[in-house]
Amino acid sequence: MSADALVLATRNEGKLRELARILDHQVIGLDAFPDAPDVPETGATFEANALLKARAIAASTGLPAVADDSGLCVDALNGMPGVLSARWAGQHGADQANLDLVLAQVADVPDARLGARFVCAAALVVPAGGQAREWVVTGQVVGRLIRVPRGTGGFGYDPIFQPNGFDLTTAEMTPEAKDAISHRGRAFRALAPFIHLIGSLS
Amino acid sequence: MSADALVLATRNEGKLRELARILDHQVIGLDAFPDAPDVPETGATFEANALLKARAIAASTGLPAVADDSGLCVDALNGMPGVLSARWAGQHGADQANLDLVLAQVADVPDARLGARFVCAAALVVPAGGQAREWVVTGQVVGRLIRVPRGTGGFGYDPIFQPNGFDLTTAEMTPEAKDAISHRGRAFRALAPFIHLIGSLS
Repeated sequence: MSADALVLATRNEGKLRELARILDHQVIGLDAFPDAPDVPETGATFEANALLKARAIAASTGLPAVADDSGLCVDALNGMPGVLSARWAGQHGADQANLDLVLAQVADVPDARLGARFVCAAALVVPAGGQAREWVVTGQVVGRLIRVPRGTGGFGYDPIFQPNGFDLTTAEMTPEAKDAISHRGRAFRALAPFIHLIGSLS
Repeated sequence: MSADALVLATRNEGKLRELARILDHQVIGLDAFPDAPDVPETGATFEANALLKARAIAASTGLPAVADDSGLCVDALNGMPGVLSARWAGQHGADQANLDLVLAQVADVPDARLGARFVCAAALVVPAGGQAREWVVTGQVVGRLIRVPRGTGGFGYDPIFQPNGFDLTTAEMTPEAKDAISHRGRAFRALAPFIHLIGSLS
């Protein structure tokens, strides 16, 4: 592996390609490291969870590692589902059940209080003997919930989230248009300069 | 009806008796007013919902009215279910489903972050021509969630809530013991002095 190899804490090929593009850097997915740990997301914040994952992968692989954690924060739910976005209905990754539950929970909430935002924290951990170097940044996209899902792109809560200034949900946008404004796009673009510093650090 | 008649915004006989005891005052339930409106709880806070209900009942009956709103606030859920406690799983009043959902949502949350509290807001509205007089007070009981429900008393989230300083859940306490420390007991005891002022106001 090259001196500036970077491990990305995902096994998802699509996400890997997308993030390689945003970061403008060659990345290696977790599939290349079968012994890498599955890190439980027990942190109270997106930042804590992204750091937990990036630290574990950096420690396990000995290579610089990038991880992210993200979710939907609904004003009328005091910012939840938040870090519990992927398991809001009780089981991990049940996208449709999670979305249905949020809509049911806000059913009596007046339209004026349907504000929401997607938030993403992205962490970079560079192992360096006893003292790892760490960076964590966040990106967000502010908008509101709609009550009737629209669109088939994206995943998770995309069909019920309409960013401010757009008539489309993030599930109705092209991947490129979504990247340009999305919480994940913003967080990873903010992380890119630090990644490009790694070479000079190691 | 006597000059100091007081309407309580509930159709539940048990709650009516309990609150009459706490308030040390004769109260009339909503069953005596078949035309009293069903007030949707659209407020963002317990206080707002209690006031919404008390105002509507006072306006509809022309009598002093008391209403409350209460719920469970879980630290790891940013204070939710909160005002959505009764409909957390999506349908109103599905106690078991609500409780099961909260337990599933905190399944990966470390024990140290299972802090929670029950909060109750109680409102008194005295109609007086154009300008009603209004009071709203809150009571709370602080404790933590347990992961395995215990007890058959109470209702709602009682089987998974253990108040600080007790080894019992609120579902394991006698009604009297629960009254003495509960959010609802505390709120209504705080409201009682204002209710006893009504006679001198009208």
